[in-house]
Amino acid sequence: MLFAKPFAELVGELEKLPGIGPKSAQRLAYYLLQQSDGQVSALVTSIIKAKKDLRFCSSCQNISEADQCPICLDGARDQSLLCVVAESRDLYAIERAHEFKGRYHVLHGLLNPMEGVGPERLRVKELLSRLESGMVQEVILATNPTIEGDATAMYLAKLLKPLGVKVTRLAHGMPIGGELDYADSATLMSAIEYRREM
Amino acid sequence: MLFAKPFAELVGELEKLPGIGPKSAQRLAYYLLQQSDGQVSALVTSIIKAKKDLRFCSSCQNISEADQCPICLDGARDQSLLCVVAESRDLYAIERAHEFKGRYHVLHGLLNPMEGVGPERLRVKELLSRLESGMVQEVILATNPTIEGDATAMYLAKLLKPLGVKVTRLAHGMPIGGELDYADSATLMSAIEYRREM
Repeated sequence: MLFAKPFAELVGELEKLPGIGPKSAQRLAYYLLQQSDGQVSALVTSIIKAKKDLRFCSSCQNISEADQCPICLDGARDQSLLCVVAESRDLYAIERAHEFKGRYHVLHGLLNPMEGVGPERLRVKELLSRLESGMVQEVILATNPTIEGDATAMYLAKLLKPLGVKVTRLAHGMPIGGELDYADSATLMSAIEYRREM
Repeated sequence: MLFAKPFAELVGELEKLPGIGPKSAQRLAYYLLQQSDGQVSALVTSIIKAKKDLRFCSSCQNISEADQCPICLDGARDQSLLCVVAESRDLYAIERAHEFKGRYHVLHGLLNPMEGVGPERLRVKELLSRLESGMVQEVILATNPTIEGDATAMYLAKLLKPLGVKVTRLAHGMPIGGELDYADSATLMSAIEYRREM
């Protein structure tokens, strides 16, 4: 290849990022070279700073600057209600709706035996130790309605129910504003199965 | 927003990259936080190193580690034939075919009056000064067959022809292995217009 070595190395590093293929990596590397030193150093600094200053909340495992995150420190949030999500971005998705007033627990992944992700790779131990205090009365399993999400929810339900805590799962059904015509069959079947009386 | 500040800043910097929207930026930031310090520092180092060690070849303007790139330094390459491309990645695309034995000139963009990109933003001055020596006999305008690519080629042709140099453009037509059925009309019309005698 005719790429200069530092360029090839940069492309190689960028290709490791999720969702970045060889073409995008080349495009990004090329873009970075065309930016001013100041712009590139802003990016580099933000990566270094985020990596240095951020940790995972000792309680809910969400991304946090301090030992405990603002949600866990917020006394107004219901401690009896715990919403379990796979990733921080799922937490932010729920927060954006401004409806849920309980607390969270971030698993940092979903069970995936095919890729060797067992319960020990998720923050399950931390979840169990949070339940020990007896404050939590209901755990909402808010993992994605995918094979891995369902398997993880099923696994956690089996684990948590014997502890005497109420375990619930997000409802499946038609998205608000969705059209029957465009819904996939699995969603439609779910919407029919869990139909509500009016 | 509930994002910790260093996280929000990192997302903001990543969003500036081409082709990276808010969702991808969050995903990338999240991914970086989950990587080891070593992996993140490999990425950061490669960015800094590329930015520090790479420059643009003083002759063809391609990405280079030295003042002149390996292609310009290669005495075996035909100095009378100059292929003008918009970006380095176009140069690499042509090099991958292992057929072209001339030299290149990278414009670093295409004319785009709507976005304020005039000839002074491209490496046109450098192209003109390369022609002064009289070594170059033919300039192949290998810009993309798009509105901007065609406009740039047209502009350069007008500029170069009075200098007594032969100016050519990449052929348009059916891609090798393509099916008429799937070709767009503009390509088909071009293939008919520039048909060759057999």
